[in-house]
Parts: sequence; structure tokens; C-alpha cells
Amino acid sequence: MIIVFRPDATDKDIDAVVDQLKAIGMTPHLSRGVSRTICGAIGDERKLEEHPLDAFAGIERIIPILKPYKLASREFKKEDTIIDVGGVKIGGNTFTVMAGPCAVENQDQVFYLADYLVKQGIHIMRGGAFKPRSSPYAFQGLGVEGLKILAAARERTGLKIITEVLDVDDCDAVAEYADIMQIGARNMQNFSLLKRCGKYRKAVCLKRGMSATIQETLLAAEYILKEGNHDVMLCERGIKTFETYTRNTLDISAVPALKLESHLPVIVDPSHSAGMKELIPALSRASVAVGADGIIVEVHHQPEKALCDGHQALRPQDLEVVLREVKRVAAAMDRVVQ
Amino acid sequence: MIIVFRPDATDKDIDAVVDQLKAIGMTPHLSRGVSRTICGAIGDERKLEEHPLDAFAGIERIIPILKPYKLASREFKKEDTIIDVGGVKIGGNTFTVMAGPCAVENQDQVFYLADYLVKQGIHIMRGGAFKPRSSPYAFQGLGVEGLKILAAARERTGLKIITEVLDVDDCDAVAEYADIMQIGARNMQNFSLLKRCGKYRKAVCLKRGMSATIQETLLAAEYILKEGNHDVMLCERGIKTFETYTRNTLDISAVPALKLESHLPVIVDPSHSAGMKELIPALSRASVAVGADGIIVEVHHQPEKALCDGHQALRPQDLEVVLREVKRVAAAMDRVVQ
Amino acid sequence: MIIVFRPDATDKDIDAVVDQLKAIGMTPHLSRGVSRTICGAIGDERKLEEHPLDAFAGIERIIPILKPYKLASREFKKEDTIIDVGGVKIGGNTFTVMAGPCAVENQDQVFYLADYLVKQGIHIMRGGAFKPRSSPYAFQGLGVEGLKILAAARERTGLKIITEVLDVDDCDAVAEYADIMQIGARNMQNFSLLKRCGKYRKAVCLKRGMSATIQETLLAAEYILKEGNHDVMLCERGIKTFETYTRNTLDISAVPALKLESHLPVIVDPSHSAGMKELIPALSRASVAVGADGIIVEVHHQPEKALCDGHQALRPQDLEVVLREVKRVAAAMDRVVQ
Amino acid sequence: MIIVFRPDATDKDIDAVVDQLKAIGMTPHLSRGVSRTICGAIGDERKLEEHPLDAFAGIERIIPILKPYKLASREFKKEDTIIDVGGVKIGGNTFTVMAGPCAVENQDQVFYLADYLVKQGIHIMRGGAFKPRSSPYAFQGLGVEGLKILAAARERTGLKIITEVLDVDDCDAVAEYADIMQIGARNMQNFSLLKRCGKYRKAVCLKRGMSATIQETLLAAEYILKEGNHDVMLCERGIKTFETYTRNTLDISAVPALKLESHLPVIVDPSHSAGMKELIPALSRASVAVGADGIIVEVHHQPEKALCDGHQALRPQDLEVVLREVKRVAAAMDRVVQ
Repeated sequence: MIIVFRPDATDKDIDAVVDQLKAIGMTPHLSRGVSRTICGAIGDERKLEEHPLDAFAGIERIIPILKPYKLASREFKKEDTIIDVGGVKIGGNTFTVMAGPCAVENQDQVFYLADYLVKQGIHIMRGGAFKPRSSPYAFQGLGVEGLKILAAARERTGLKIITEVLDVDDCDAVAEYADIMQIGARNMQNFSLLKRCGKYRKAVCLKRGMSATIQETLLAAEYILKEGNHDVMLCERGIKTFETYTRNTLDISAVPALKLESHLPVIVDPSHSAGMKELIPALSRASVAVGADGIIVEVHHQPEKALCDGHQALRPQDLEVVLREVKRVAAAMDRVVQ
Repeated sequence: MIIVFRPDATDKDIDAVVDQLKAIGMTPHLSRGVSRTICGAIGDERKLEEHPLDAFAGIERIIPILKPYKLASREFKKEDTIIDVGGVKIGGNTFTVMAGPCAVENQDQVFYLADYLVKQGIHIMRGGAFKPRSSPYAFQGLGVEGLKILAAARERTGLKIITEVLDVDDCDAVAEYADIMQIGARNMQNFSLLKRCGKYRKAVCLKRGMSATIQETLLAAEYILKEGNHDVMLCERGIKTFETYTRNTLDISAVPALKLESHLPVIVDPSHSAGMKELIPALSRASVAVGADGIIVEVHHQPEKALCDGHQALRPQDLEVVLREVKRVAAAMDRVVQ
Repeated sequence: MIIVFRPDATDKDIDAVVDQLKAIGMTPHLSRGVSRTICGAIGDERKLEEHPLDAFAGIERIIPILKPYKLASREFKKEDTIIDVGGVKIGGNTFTVMAGPCAVENQDQVFYLADYLVKQGIHIMRGGAFKPRSSPYAFQGLGVEGLKILAAARERTGLKIITEVLDVDDCDAVAEYADIMQIGARNMQNFSLLKRCGKYRKAVCLKRGMSATIQETLLAAEYILKEGNHDVMLCERGIKTFETYTRNTLDISAVPALKLESHLPVIVDPSHSAGMKELIPALSRASVAVGADGIIVEVHHQPEKALCDGHQALRPQDLEVVLREVKRVAAAMDRVVQ
Repeated sequence: MIIVFRPDATDKDIDAVVDQLKAIGMTPHLSRGVSRTICGAIGDERKLEEHPLDAFAGIERIIPILKPYKLASREFKKEDTIIDVGGVKIGGNTFTVMAGPCAVENQDQVFYLADYLVKQGIHIMRGGAFKPRSSPYAFQGLGVEGLKILAAARERTGLKIITEVLDVDDCDAVAEYADIMQIGARNMQNFSLLKRCGKYRKAVCLKRGMSATIQETLLAAEYILKEGNHDVMLCERGIKTFETYTRNTLDISAVPALKLESHLPVIVDPSHSAGMKELIPALSRASVAVGADGIIVEVHHQPEKALCDGHQALRPQDLEVVLREVKRVAAAMDRVVQ
């Protein structure tokens, strides 16, 4: 941590900061220049989260040097984390395609799609039982009934299930029926939910918030890891920008950036990024080329009857295009698509 | 609602859409141009939330005409909503200053500040018992203990209390001890929390999400209103942009925009917008001049000892400057500061 | 300047940086911590613009301490700059309203509006002769002919003229006919144009770019100041964000931020910020309350016939509302509207 | 074009709009609903750029249906444009790597790098002679002297040259010495420069502005095309967002989006997007996989001595990694790297 003092900081101001740093066990190093005095503080910066210096007089800026997260960091754990979801690996040299409908609508729909996905060689099915919708008048999901349909599809096909949990009170049910608990973008800083998901021994897929920085995303993951759940994967799903052509702006650079900073697997959601199915093949190829560990895409065999996000759902024939193209790029990256 | 067809849409595509519109009770009007066919659909657009047209073949774009929210809209209720918080009015010709510490730290701190606020003529005290913090290593608040301290301060001084609720499971406790339940920016689309807060007969202060549009903010309010709680005020607290000088960018235009679209009271949080106390007097003056119904600001008598956000806390003498300046501008706006 | 080394930086890496700092006349101060070595460099940081350290091995981050601009800074010049435009002062205790049409369309239009503005007590008229338009099919302005009409209006009424210059080749003409040369948002980083405008002894109004930070804006001003032209005013006119309700997002905090960092006058353009005339009265009031030195607004007596931006033009009766409200708030701020 | 009337629009308001539409040769179709009247207007919407309806009374919203650009659109020209730069093709089944230093510093540097690039099989060299720099104290480029060095390198090696033009007055010189004239992001809406570049029969590389939408980018290209120069390639180089980890946010979706909307070739600049060389290999792979027609990257053999952007320059050995990886992905895309 570096403290930059204002040009008009008094000796008293500087002494007060130096004393405080010593009091919390850090070692201050002062450099007095012509226009500014700066103070390097050596020691565990995370102590300063508990004893912030923000309001000491005479300070112009405080610049943290260490990352504010620890368990999520590449410095803490050098090798890539590979998550084992009942035998299906996420991370390493596999590239995982998760697919399924936006929302669970009924058993026929889910069974039809599950059977289809298995035939395509896919191992993980997505589908929302609890749906976060901007409008209270939109379809809110089937709830626990939806979870049961997903579990039945798993029973029938052996597919693993990923589904979103919206609420601490639903965590037990989701953990019971699903293989991966998904925390959606709107809940990335729902800290109660993060802590609760950290209590389970069940993989968690944490979606980046629409306005969350890479650092905030890793801090959100840290909440889960700190509770003892180490099976966390991150998901880039687009951020909010001024561009309106796409629903969100896929921040593809976040994938290698997260890989540089963290050991956690990173997947991409091209469906919600683009919000239009025309761009999904291209973004899926880019995801594998950039080094992501997988994608999660929306598929529907009757998108015109879909209760949500029909415009961004791939039809089965579209999914086959995506799979074929992704496999070619994955081969060039020495990765195996599953 | 207007449906714009692609140049290559077939008659079959167009007929399918027209039939669907009729099936859900809307009246289609087709206009065939040289380069595009468009279809105006007359009727209750909200039905289309349940039967989305998104994935019908041949559609280029769907343009909603009506607002997707209803109860929150100015069309639904022409006159301004004025919320009565135990005799303290929010909205109308008053301008309400809510002040207090970022976090409840201990009883001495809260009592000291409460006594001070009363002397300044302030009626509503803020203070966080449950704190949403980006880092799991930062102070997370005193929880229910904090709520009790706030309630004791109310008992002692008559101040009304506004405090944040993070979690559906804490709603009962917050509703019991506080006068206004605050939903924070990070939870603006925590739909479970919104629905739960709609069940109480207790004022709710809904903060705009850091990346929420004005429309999404009003839809979030609609979630609360739809459950029967009409005492909702909105709070503009800065949005995320590329500018890093301030912590967030105060979207001052959102105040008159929300007033144009909705009847709900709108307040401003200059502390979190700016993230630096130097700008708070100017932003407070702008808030009253732009037509907001109040501000909520952080105050601390010993900011250098504050457990959070000390750099953006006003000291008592700073608050007095803010109050003095706000009163002058409020007089020019024919509003009374309370 | 502070250099933070990577955890794996070698002694050789560190020595190389230290030697380079000495070579360019700066004094390095090393602090070796457990996890990081940092180096404070005392001296004139602007030298590093010419000898950047960016690519030296072992460096994790370089943190500038001093502002990269000098002549524009409050540290360089403590007292507020007041610009004298032929007797009309901008800055100080006056609040200047500049008004006029988006584009000069013909002499009748300009004369009609000029006569009207004089009657309203306004001293500076705006009007575009060279128009920067997103589409090549939109009206591009009358060019020099437009400048002559503006000059004729000045002759007739005594109003001072502010008009945009798009191109270095038009600078002489604009400088001849206008009193204030405006550099538009799209040209804020057209460095050739900035340098050229710095050669004149004529006031310049520099509009902030749509995606320019406060620091980049001050660096753009520095380009003009460095050439010897000190009569620069800055104009906040809205930035690009995800919000689409308004045309741009007025960054009202930029006004006090620029005042804190710089001595230059700051005005606000509510017309282009909002892009809809309904919000202009509220944003104009906010501008005066926040401490701006003026506003520049679009007015048209026949907006339905305007060749550009008719939707954001005030009608004369709207302008009178703005003036009346601005005067009331200005009085509360001890400022005189002109 | 669709005009949505306000609920309180009068018959007179509606008639006025209908009459105006007829007057400019468009055919209005009215649909009167319970809550809104809407009017579809059939005909050439671009006429409305000259006769805008914006300020007619009673209008709530005007929704364009046709694209505002024509020559740049895929509707206008179905097949992909392939640009021939003296025998080097851009577009089609080739993937073009353009590489070279940020700035031309001296002849030795340029010759060294040119010889190296040729050995790597690269055909186009980049290098800035006129440098747009945020700070007036930073290196501004060698100007015409730099152009001559680039031309000498072309003479020596046969490499084609791409270099930026900042100013209309430099266009002749750049057109004389270079093979591709680059318009930088800061000048994307410098309409004078766009028009001037449209006058040459010389390829133009138009970089997307940092806050330009896809539509604005295509409108900027339209300015060049309209003057008769059809050899325009677009370059995605990152947009400004709240994320600060990278210098800009590479909007990878813009590549397939531009391909969908337009026939022009699209390249990617990973160096300026990322602003850190660590991410360049990953973003280069993503660029080829997403369907771009090339990349433009910064290379320097002594980045620690570079006068600009050393931190984002690849060293020769890094470039070889990029080339190797790009070739593998290109093969999977049936494209040949040149």
C-alpha cells in the first residue's frame, strides 16, 4: 500500500498516518519529494480493510499494491483448478459445452431437449427453474417443480444439470436437484447468497455482474471460496456499455485476464452477451480460441413458443453448427470438446 | 407494439405473426412498404410478456410502444406520491435530508450522531447494520445488534430510521426496527427481496442499480408496488461509467426523467455517487435545484476511525455547510428543508 | 511516480529502472517489502512522457503522482480564470447564458432570434455554421456563408458570437467572424485543431469528448494553453453511458471536479446532454446550483422547421422559463445571470 | 419510419405530421389504438435527414426502420469487399497480419523491424509518423520525416505501409508515402478528414471511435464511400467501458455484427484494446476465430526504449508466438495467414 500525501499535508498529518500503520503492524517507509511526500506501507494490506485510512487528514490518495482477494488468486494457487462434476471435468484440456433452454417450461420440452443433447455428445444441461426477470409481468419460472423436471431429465439421460439459484431460501432445493448451482449476473454481489453457496460441497458457476469489474468478480468468488467451497467457475456473460446493437458487450479479454489473475475455470455465455442468435457461432469460436474452458448456450426446439429469450435461442440445427465449428477451433487449441 | 419484418419475410411468416396477435387478443394493422412490411399491434402489450413473439421467423425487430411498468407510471397516477413516515413527509414541497454514518459501529457513535442530527433539525437518520461489501475481508456490519442500536437512537431522539436490508431472511427484523427499508444498488434486481419488501406496510427506499437503466429501475419498483406496498421512493446514487475521478457518475438527469415517467418520490445519494466528500456540497445543491425530494448523506464525527467509507463521510461542520447551502437553493425552489 | 515491481523481479531488473531514473534526473527511493519492492521517483514526472518506463522488465505497475497537465491545473494558478469576451465576462460571479439555434439556416432565422435574445438580456449567441453530423446525408451547415450571417447579427445587435470550428483550414475564418471558437466533443482529441486554436488570441470553448475522462479533458485544454492562448473555457455536455433515456448522460459532478483541479471556467450544455427539451429547465437549474459558470442552450422559434436537433430546441417561451428559474437559483448562489 | 404519437396528441398534431410526410413524398399509414396512434411512413427515410420531424407537436417517438447508411450496407452490396493493396489482399479467405512499432523513431529501428517482419512472412508494416497523444508533453511523432523513413523501408523490403493521418493538411503527404491511410479512433468523427480521405484512390483503415456505436462507425465509413473511395476497411480497437483492467474493452462481437451489416473488411487491433502485451496472443486467436480479416499489432525489438506504448508492444519472440497460434486457428477457419 502506498499513501500519497497532499502538497499541504502537515508533519502532524504524516505522523498520524505513520503511527496508525505501526499500530496495525505494518512498516512505513517515507519518501519526501519536492511536491509530494509518499509513504510505502509494507505488510498485510488486508488488515487495512478492517482499519481503513481513508479519512486521515492530509491524504490525497491510497494505492493498494496487493490484490484484495487471496484464495481466488493465481499467486495463492499456481496450477489451474479443474472441477469434477460427477465425472465431467471443467477446466484443463477439455472444453465443455453446456446447453439447454432458457427456462424449464414443462417435462416434454426438457425431455425432448435432453435426449437431443445426449445424442450430440453434450454432458451438461442448463435450464432455469427460478427466473430473474426485469418485469414482474414476465414468466418467473416453475420453481421447485422445474427443479424436479430437471432432475428427472438427469435420471433419464445421465446429463448433469446446471440451474440458477435466486435466493438463499432456495439453496437447499437447488443443491439437492442440481449438479452446478448458478449465481446469476444480477446476484453477483448478493453477498448473502454467495456466502450460502459457499457452505455446500457442490460446484458453483458465478456469473460476472453486468457492471462488475474483473476485480469485483474475483472478490465475489472469494466470498464463496472463503466459506470452504473451492469448486467455483466464473462465467463472462457480457457487460453493460453504450453499444446497443448487442444486448450486452461480451468482454472477451476478461477470459485471459481472469486466467492470468486466478486459477479458477472460466466459461463464456454467448447467448446473453449477444442477445441474438446470429452472433452465437462466431462468439463460441472466439471463446474457445481465447482460452475459455467452455460455453453455456441457450437451445430450444421451438423457440417461437419459448416463454423467454426465444430470439437468442439456438435451434437444434444451429447448435450443430456451433458444435462443429467449436470442435475445429478446439482441435487447433489442443482441447477436447465435451 | 410494432413488428418490423425483414425484407425477406414471406407471406407465411407474416400470417403466422398476425394469427398469433389475434390469438392473444390484440388487433394487428399491416403496412406493406417497398423495403419493409410493418405491423402495428393494438391492445395490452403486457400480454406479450407471457407470449413473446421474439423467435417468430421473418421478424427483424419488435418495438414496444407502451411502458412495460404500470403502477409506477405517471400515466397510471398523475399526482405525485407523498410518503408519510410516521409524520415525516417525503415528496411534495419538502426536501428531506437523511444523514448518518455509513455503518453502525457502536451505541456511543450512533447516539452522539443522533443527538447532533436532531440539533440540526434533521428528521431521518441513516446507518447500516447489514453492510454489502465488495470484499469478504471488510467489515460486514453488526447485524441485528446494529438494528437494536438504531432503534434505541430512535427511542432516544424521535428520529426516523432508514437502514438497508440485504436478505429476505432479515426483512422481518429490519421491518421491526426501522422506518424505511432500504434496498441497495447491488440488490436492485434481487427480485426475491423486492417481492418480500412489497409485503410490508413500511416505506421502501429503492436504490438504482449501478448499471440499471431508468426503465429497469421503474420495473424494479413495479415488483414492490405489485405486492401492494405503495410507499416506494427511488434513489439515484450514481452509475458505472468510464470516468474514474468519481466513484460513480451521478446521473442527475435521472431525477427529472423519473419525475416525468413516474409519480414516486426521488432522492439522491451524493456520498456514494461522488465517493469523495469534497464534491458533496455541490452535488447536494444540484439535487435540490434539479427537483429531487431529498438527499441521503454519510456523516461521521470521527471519519478517520470509521469502519467504512470514511473518505466520503461529511464531518459535522461539513454537514452544516451542506444544510446551509441546500436551504438557500431550496428557498429558490419554494421547498422547505427538513 | 511510483514503480511497483512484480514479485519475481530480479535485482538486475530493479537496478535497470533505478539507473534509468537517475539518467533522466529523477531521484529513486526503494522500499523492499516481503511481497513487493516499490520505488518512489522524486522529480519532474513529465520527463517520463519523453522517456517512458513502460516496457522495462520486472515492472508490474507505474503510478503517476503528479497531474500530467500543468498550465490547466489549480496548482499552477490558484485563482479562477475569468475570460473577457469583448466586455462580457465568463467566470467569476456571473452566470452566462449562451443561446441560439443548433444551426444557422438563413438570415431571417438568425436575425429574428438575435433580436429576441437581446430582449431577454442575453449577451452571447450560439449557432453552427459548420455542423458535425453523424450521417453524411444530414444537413452539414452553411459554412462561411453561415459565419457571415452570424457576424451580421452581431453587427445588428451587439451580441457576441460562439460557433464551432471543425477543421484547421476553417480556423482563420471562424476566428475572424466569431468571438468564441468552439471545439466540439467529437474533436476534443483532434490535436491539430487544438494546437491551431492555441495560436489565436480568441476565447476557445472546449467541449468534453463523449468518452473523455476529466483528466483527458484537461490535457486537451493543456494543448491550447501551451500554445499561448489562455482564454479557454471547458464545457460539460454529457458522456456516453448505457443509459438511453437521455441522448447522453450529463456528468454534473464533472463541474465541481474540474473546478477543484483547474482554474478554467466551466459551462454546461444541457441541450446535447439531455437530447430532449423537457429536461432542460431542470438541468439548467442544476448547472447553476452545482457551480458552473454558464450554460449553452439551443433555441429555435420554429423548431418544427429546424434543420437539426429540433427536438432538443427550446421555444422562446421555454427559454423564458429557463431564464426565470436560473435567475432564482443564481440569486441563492450569489451570482448574476447575464 | 414509424411515428408514435403521445396519448394527448390532437387531430391537428396528427394531421400536421401526415401533411408533412406527404409533402416530402412519403406515404403515411395511420393506426389508431386505444392508448396511442401510430403512423408508419413508407418511402425513402433518408429524406427525413433533410426535413426532420423531431419538433412537430404531439410526437412521442420517431423510430427509423431503414439503416441510415447505404453504400456501407450489406443490403446495398451482398458480396464481401476485398481490398487489393498493391497485390496484397485484405478480406476474402486471407487473414492479414499488420505489424510494426507504435511510432517511427528513426531509420535504424524501422529498417531492423522491416527486415524482421519480411522474414516472418508479413506483408504490411504499421508505424506512426503523426502520433495523436493525450498529453502535449508526449512524443508527437517525426511527421513527414517519419513518412519518408517508412517509404524507404518499403523501398528496401517491398512491405506495404499503413500509417495514420491526423489532419486534412497531411493527407497528400500520407497518400504519397503510404499504401493504407489510417484514420484513428479519436478522429472517427472528424468529418473533414473522412471526406478528404474519400477523395483519394488509396485504401483507408477506419478505426472505430472509443465511444462510437456500430451504426456510427458505419456512418463514418459512409462519409468516405460517398466521396467515391470504396477501399475502406474497419478496425475494432476497443471501446471505453467501466473496466480498467484493460486499456479498453475489445468489443469482439462488433466483428460479426459489422460483417452482418456491411460488406467491408474488418480487422482487429488487440494492442490498443488490451494495452498490455500479455493478452495479445489470446485476443489475436479470438480475432481470427470470430471471423476478422486481420489484426494490426505493435512490435518493437527494444520496447524499453520505445517512445510510446512500450508496455503493449510485442517483442519479436512474442510476435512469433502470435503468428504460430494464429496460423493454427486460421487453418481451422480455412483461412490463410499473410
